[in-house]
Amino acid sequence: MSAQDQDPLTYQRSGVDTAAAGEALARLTRHVKQTLSFRDDAPVGRPLRGVGYYANVIDMGGGMGLALSMDGVGTKLIVAELLGKYDTVGIDCIAMNVNDLICVGADPVAMLDYVALGRVDADVLDQLGRGLLEGCRRCRITIPGGELAQVGEMLRGEGATRGLDIVGTAVGVVPLDRVLFGQQVTPGDVVVGISSSGLHSNGFTLARKVLAPSRADYERHEPAFERTIGEELLEPTALYVELARDLLSSGLAVHAICHITGDGFVNLSRVEAPVGFELDALPEPQPVFQVIEERGGIPKAEMYSVFNMGVGLCVVLPEKDASAAMEAASRHAFDAWIIGRVTAEEGVVRLPAFDLESRGGSELRIRS
Amino acid sequence: MSAQDQDPLTYQRSGVDTAAAGEALARLTRHVKQTLSFRDDAPVGRPLRGVGYYANVIDMGGGMGLALSMDGVGTKLIVAELLGKYDTVGIDCIAMNVNDLICVGADPVAMLDYVALGRVDADVLDQLGRGLLEGCRRCRITIPGGELAQVGEMLRGEGATRGLDIVGTAVGVVPLDRVLFGQQVTPGDVVVGISSSGLHSNGFTLARKVLAPSRADYERHEPAFERTIGEELLEPTALYVELARDLLSSGLAVHAICHITGDGFVNLSRVEAPVGFELDALPEPQPVFQVIEERGGIPKAEMYSVFNMGVGLCVVLPEKDASAAMEAASRHAFDAWIIGRVTAEEGVVRLPAFDLESRGGSELRIRS
Repeated sequence: MSAQDQDPLTYQRSGVDTAAAGEALARLTRHVKQTLSFRDDAPVGRPLRGVGYYANVIDMGGGMGLALSMDGVGTKLIVAELLGKYDTVGIDCIAMNVNDLICVGADPVAMLDYVALGRVDADVLDQLGRGLLEGCRRCRITIPGGELAQVGEMLRGEGATRGLDIVGTAVGVVPLDRVLFGQQVTPGDVVVGISSSGLHSNGFTLARKVLAPSRADYERHEPAFERTIGEELLEPTALYVELARDLLSSGLAVHAICHITGDGFVNLSRVEAPVGFELDALPEPQPVFQVIEERGGIPKAEMYSVFNMGVGLCVVLPEKDASAAMEAASRHAFDAWIIGRVTAEEGVVRLPAFDLESRGGSELRIRS
Repeated sequence: MSAQDQDPLTYQRSGVDTAAAGEALARLTRHVKQTLSFRDDAPVGRPLRGVGYYANVIDMGGGMGLALSMDGVGTKLIVAELLGKYDTVGIDCIAMNVNDLICVGADPVAMLDYVALGRVDADVLDQLGRGLLEGCRRCRITIPGGELAQVGEMLRGEGATRGLDIVGTAVGVVPLDRVLFGQQVTPGDVVVGISSSGLHSNGFTLARKVLAPSRADYERHEPAFERTIGEELLEPTALYVELARDLLSSGLAVHAICHITGDGFVNLSRVEAPVGFELDALPEPQPVFQVIEERGGIPKAEMYSVFNMGVGLCVVLPEKDASAAMEAASRHAFDAWIIGRVTAEEGVVRLPAFDLESRGGSELRIRS
């Protein structure tokens, strides 16, 4: 269970108690955890970990691991529906999954897609297919199968499809002796931040509420974005797969790769080593984050624990390897910065400039 | 894309043109098919086939194949919501996926689950978890990860969760030299039918319309079922994994395993060999099918191309091996019958007793 995308403001206003939601999710995972031992006596299939890291890895025998992740696009799809523009959410679906896979050191090889529609619409499916194809091309994976469901009674939506959901499951390979769960992260390591393309596919409940309280707002030109609000919100999620392939085959001592999703920088605390993080050199975030912060009157600490704030991926490695990692990022057309350091304070993520100090991120996450 | 669950009567009445739906799906798959070559130059990840068979297999190197399937539970979930009974749909989700995996000769090892809810409800999640755990236990697979999404704006539903969707992706292993796509099926082979547990998880749009036109009908005791209509509809899908493991390791010449899903017996035409099927010894279907047929006034040919009609899995093998296959089924507490034979008429599935003759089943399927 992964990729929290909670909006604390919205949750409070809507009366949803996040603690209660976490307790409810624990009721599900309590059962699911019991399955983890069901392959202990089998030659293949034993999961290396429980749920909670970006992706899990199962032992396929012969020293090979199979990495698995499953994620959807969430309420970014509502923006696509309102704009009638569906040709990029396929990229988002791929990105949210493969960007999780690379965090365990895996080479993504394939993704299966589930598309649920209220009504089958040829043009929408054509657009969805174009995004999926483009995403696969950019990270050299295939879509060997999937499922299309027409379930109008189960979906709500106002676009041509009268409701839409898109979910992917990605698989990748990783030698068992090269699996990354952040177990080698060491105090003194540096955190290299890699630029995001904007919001990616998290934080949309809050972003939509602030930027587009009414439907007409999506079509409104926003000077700060130099395009409409809808276009800005739909900017596809960056794909870090080719960069990760470079980094992982470079000989650099990559200790962790952290996908910055719905928890913002609190995601860093998922690493297994008993360490913390102090981020004191974060870059200026893109205008979309600045506008959300100003218009919503949202505290910086909130912003940095909900959004990626311009940094979609963090690479943790010894200082001596930082410049090579930043050069690799540059080769893949990403900006990169040393944004902070690993500390000895277990479980603590501290952003001193923004009064953010998180102790022990939740293991269980709910997307919204 | 897989697992058609169309209801031609409903489709006609609702004005949905199935030919148009097929054309729309082709618009998606036209793009997706182009991804199949994206791993041709990579050491691992090449899919052995396009979309359309029960599951696909990708080449993992070293002679090993990874089988992949993705499927949801569809509108059977609406029955669970209306009854407030969620402890078996997890079994359905697992079954719909692993029963597809065994069709390519794979040994299922894991499934990831996506659960979308309108509202997080602890009791519902507890019940869902119990079903998933029970399904995993029965077929010895793990759930190493998954995703929970609270997306009330995207879902419609009346139960405690105000909307629910459950989707699984299962993975399994199969040596490349033992992958089954039905390529060895030979005229003269026999078709051994394995008993279903009832409707399984297909045909629910039609079944619900006929058996429960109003919500109160779900709670009504139905003498033919010796329980309520809702209880009958929620009977969990049979799991054929342990039987398949037995058959595939038995030395029997298993030429094809066919999961009977939303196309009924038309599913048999998916086998790759240039053959047909004549089924002339089908068993008496369970009362649920008889009641749907009578109350709905549905032609037999329709019934046998929408529902499993008491036969949830078909095993195709030489006549000499049929009795051993039936004995294996019996050891796993299934009934089994020789229901017909393989013919030389390519693509034709014929049920002479019921005036059903299908020529060339659709490769593209939409679940409903």
